[in-house]
This record gives sequence, C-alpha cells and structure tokens, in this order.
Amino acid sequence: MARASLNYMEMALEQARLAADRGEVPVGAVVVDGQSNEILAAAGNRVLELKDPTAHAEMLAIRQATRKTGSERLVDVDIYVTLEPCPMCATAMSFARIRRLYYGASDAKGGGVEHGPRIFSQETCHHAPEVIGGINETVAASLLRDFFSERR
Amino acid sequence: MARASLNYMEMALEQARLAADRGEVPVGAVVVDGQSNEILAAAGNRVLELKDPTAHAEMLAIRQATRKTGSERLVDVDIYVTLEPCPMCATAMSFARIRRLYYGASDAKGGGVEHGPRIFSQETCHHAPEVIGGINETVAASLLRDFFSERR
Repeated sequence: MARASLNYMEMALEQARLAADRGEVPVGAVVVDGQSNEILAAAGNRVLELKDPTAHAEMLAIRQATRKTGSERLVDVDIYVTLEPCPMCATAMSFARIRRLYYGASDAKGGGVEHGPRIFSQETCHHAPEVIGGINETVAASLLRDFFSERR
Repeated sequence: MARASLNYMEMALEQARLAADRGEVPVGAVVVDGQSNEILAAAGNRVLELKDPTAHAEMLAIRQATRKTGSERLVDVDIYVTLEPCPMCATAMSFARIRRLYYGASDAKGGGVEHGPRIFSQETCHHAPEVIGGINETVAASLLRDFFSERR
C-alpha cells in the first residue's frame, strides 16, 4: 500500500481518539480526493453530542465532502475509516459513488461490508467501491477495546 | 388501520409532492410520537438541493425528530414513509429505535426492508421496528411513476 494511504488512516485514527475524548464510540473517517490527494473531510462520531443516531463518522465526513465539492456524487474519491462501516454508512458510500473504501478493524457485530447484510454484494447495490480492509487493524481495534473496557 | 395513521400517510404524501415540485425524487416521511400523537418531524427528499446523498426524506425526518426530542433514541415513535426505505434509512430507523414503520409503495430496485439486504431480518440488526407496508400504495407509486415519466 502507498505511504499516503497509511497517513490518511493515521488521520482517521486521530479523529477516532478525539471522538473517545468526547465520550463517543471511537471511530474516525477521512475523505480524500483520489486525483489531487486533497483532504475533503475528516470527522469522528458525534452521535451523543448531536443527539443524532445517524451522526457516524462516515456520514459526517461524506456530508462534509459533498458540501465542499458542491456535488452529491464523489467521483474518484476515497474514504478511510477506522472500523468496518455499518449498513447505513456502507449504503451512503454507495450513493456517494465512493471509489475506494479503506478500513481498519472488522466489526462482526455491527459491520455491513464483510458481515451482516454485506451491502456491496447485494444485487440492489448499484455502485460498490473497491474495498481494502485490515489497515492499522490492531490500533483501531485496541482503541475500541480500551474505550469499552473503561466503561464496564 | 386507525384513521390517524392514514392522515399521517397523507401528510407524508404531501411531503413527497413538495419534493417533486423541487425536482427531487418524490418521497416523503413523517415522524409521530406514538403516545401523544404529536408530529415530531415531516420531510421530503432534498438530495439535490443540499447536494447530500444521505438527505433522504427518512434521514432528514429522523434527525429533525431527535433534535426536537433531545435524544438520539426515539422510543414509542412511529415513522410514515411513502416508499419502502433503502438500506441506509432502514438502518437509521433501527439505530433510532423506531417502534413502527408504515410505508406506501414497495421498491424492488432500491428497497432494503422487503428487498435486497432485508435489514431488519439480519442477525446483526439489534432493533427491528414493526413493519406495515402497502399503505396508500397506489398513490405513492403513481407519484413516482409520473415523476420519472416526465423526465424521460
């Protein structure tokens, strides 16, 4: 994998850490223009802060990115997420025409890419990004583990 | 079905018509407190206007409702939608703990409730609303048909 990709995942992990500091489940996302390498958005979970069950890191980052580009379709755009996206976020990535999804830890309980509904494999999914999982997996997973163990 | 439910679906259909007037795919949603019958939110699609691929009627209505109630969980709350929700919106309803989903037309191409990933039947779905489909189905379907035939 290119060095740049690792740096973007580092940025997503930093967003996840900031989310944990706010008391949110530590997941972070970064959206990058795949042509220019411009960072279009960076966000962490804000479900509790915004009292919004849809305010996952990926949703906030996609909405930031489309606001920035002025189009509801993100062509040649990649997303880096610290955790396997849930079915809501995976479907949003399909709608946004995301080119490539890089993610960290997999999520057997709530993921929707390699688990559960496997959104991108559905016949009714009209655009599927290329998917590359397992990036910085141990760091992303330990962030989540630490967060939940502190709350038990 | 209770008379009130039909009135809420009429309101959702009105939101769909307003969406069509804005050039958006005509889908509307209304969120109702199932105890007090208070209308917590009403919205139509605003994907093009907001340049936001996640701005489906249901997502906007859920976010309006949680802002109004001040909680990211909508307990004893029902949603009325003119079209079978997509997987993104169905998952958002699960996260929001929606009690009951009433919808109009079914959507074989993009629906995620009785088609495609059947979100609420997934083992990884931790809350499934009760689902009542086919309400004012012909009206909801003809709104969509008219919209797309005018654009051909």
